[in-house]
Amino acid sequence: MSKIQIVAGIDVGGTNTAFGFVDSNGKIVAESSIQTHSEQNANQLFERLFAELNMISRKIEKEYELVGIGIGAPNANYYKGTVELPPNLNWGFVNVLEIVKKYSPLPSAITNDANAAAIGEMIFGAAKGMKDFIVITLGTGLGSGIVVNGELVYGADGFAGEVGHTIVDPNGRECGCGRKGCLETYASASGIRRTVYELICNTNTPSKLRNISFDQLTAKDISDAAASGDKLALEAFDYTAKILGLKLADAVAHLSPEAIVLFGGLALAGDLIFVPTKRYMEEYMLNIFKNKVKLIPSALPGGNAAVLGAAALIWNELKKSK
Amino acid sequence: MSKIQIVAGIDVGGTNTAFGFVDSNGKIVAESSIQTHSEQNANQLFERLFAELNMISRKIEKEYELVGIGIGAPNANYYKGTVELPPNLNWGFVNVLEIVKKYSPLPSAITNDANAAAIGEMIFGAAKGMKDFIVITLGTGLGSGIVVNGELVYGADGFAGEVGHTIVDPNGRECGCGRKGCLETYASASGIRRTVYELICNTNTPSKLRNISFDQLTAKDISDAAASGDKLALEAFDYTAKILGLKLADAVAHLSPEAIVLFGGLALAGDLIFVPTKRYMEEYMLNIFKNKVKLIPSALPGGNAAVLGAAALIWNELKKSK
Repeated sequence: MSKIQIVAGIDVGGTNTAFGFVDSNGKIVAESSIQTHSEQNANQLFERLFAELNMISRKIEKEYELVGIGIGAPNANYYKGTVELPPNLNWGFVNVLEIVKKYSPLPSAITNDANAAAIGEMIFGAAKGMKDFIVITLGTGLGSGIVVNGELVYGADGFAGEVGHTIVDPNGRECGCGRKGCLETYASASGIRRTVYELICNTNTPSKLRNISFDQLTAKDISDAAASGDKLALEAFDYTAKILGLKLADAVAHLSPEAIVLFGGLALAGDLIFVPTKRYMEEYMLNIFKNKVKLIPSALPGGNAAVLGAAALIWNELKKSK
Repeated sequence: MSKIQIVAGIDVGGTNTAFGFVDSNGKIVAESSIQTHSEQNANQLFERLFAELNMISRKIEKEYELVGIGIGAPNANYYKGTVELPPNLNWGFVNVLEIVKKYSPLPSAITNDANAAAIGEMIFGAAKGMKDFIVITLGTGLGSGIVVNGELVYGADGFAGEVGHTIVDPNGRECGCGRKGCLETYASASGIRRTVYELICNTNTPSKLRNISFDQLTAKDISDAAASGDKLALEAFDYTAKILGLKLADAVAHLSPEAIVLFGGLALAGDLIFVPTKRYMEEYMLNIFKNKVKLIPSALPGGNAAVLGAAALIWNELKKSK
């Protein structure tokens, strides 16, 4: 009996590093995770990771053949195989694919989380069959992965797809990148928290959110308040959607995608974010694009999306090399 | 002796329609033009055009073999072969490639002027050998052509590359597209004229441009004034460059190009536009892109650039189909 081919999808996070063995249909046949220990270097992580990965691999090797390794990691460069000064890991500048080669001779590839999510949506999720689309991840920041002609856009140096760092207002909110007014300071889980506080200070609109300190306030608190009719929370969603819709219209003007897929924490707010974002996006779009571009939620199962994205990355590479 | 292969590059303009026979090195071996007569329909234009084209073709047919026809036209759709409601032509919605088939059985292709310029730069001009770059045409409006992985980006519906209609300020200047604050209302030959008039009304800066009516004022007047040290004209270039640099930084965040090529009337102002645009673009770019993206002038010979672009379009198609 011939074995079923699987790949390992690895998602390196600041706290945990998760992996799954994923078949070509996106089914996770086994999975596990280890603590990342962000103070350690990359070598130490991958030594522990491959110990765990090989243990699980041996358990399933009668039925399955491992054929590749895909990795999603912050600040990863697809071309060079490197991770460069990741904000939450003590890695510095490191060639991850060279480290991986010490533990496995299999084909491997690495990219950042948002790009992995985009390939995941293309191979297993909401963008199946699409050749031109954009994935926007609305987490702590705003990440994006752009697909053109069925290929992920890496650009000249591997860092394309930084829609979160397009500028809304050059005199706007301070961004973690050192500049001001980047889209992610408005449209992200942390952006909407800042907007709530701006509305608290600028308006007299009563709100239960006035009882929560900034550090305690979560995007979920804001969604819950909005869902129960809290006016200030609803206003915060409207403002977030207005800015996101404006900049998505700009992205459409560049790329004319078939769809934009929203992914991540803030996207889970559902209609609260989708309905006004679509309305503003249509309002701000050039005539020739109006009513053509779908705005849709991710169709990757939440908890495993990053692992599936990393698996999709290497499945896609294996398909291309055939 | 075997004949040298050539293609016909056709540039449909509001006043004149020019064409040239172009070899695979970008050499124009013969050329001519006819009046467009914008009140006529597309059938009438191409009947007259092919009469002229065939006449010239017969003169050179001993030496040259015509192998394809490339067309650049306003509002052209590459996928469908159509031109859709061009602003300066009485064409309505018309399938141009079907009309062309009546006159020639050769392979043909059509795209808009800015896309043709981008392919022209890739095949014959400043972007030779580049796989990721953007061409910005600074004419009456602002057009753009985007190349990713060596392929022009058409997007899902053929209308990608509308960087001129990204939004600088949703409450800004009225745009011909019916919206407000589009980039081309600031960064274009007509945009800088509007900026001069804004500065005339908002400042007391003395300027020889105060003697020229809006309708008479040209981008060349502004360049000439700036070159001779006119403060208001220099301020207008600085303001134009600031907004262009900001939105080019946004384009870089999407696409991470190797270079941005500036083309068209306003680009001829040279250092007056290149130096401040580069400075602002660097200022507004995310760290990872700084000092990596070239800002360079077109290398297509001015008068023939549109014809060369249309020729490059069909040479590129012929190359792909091999």
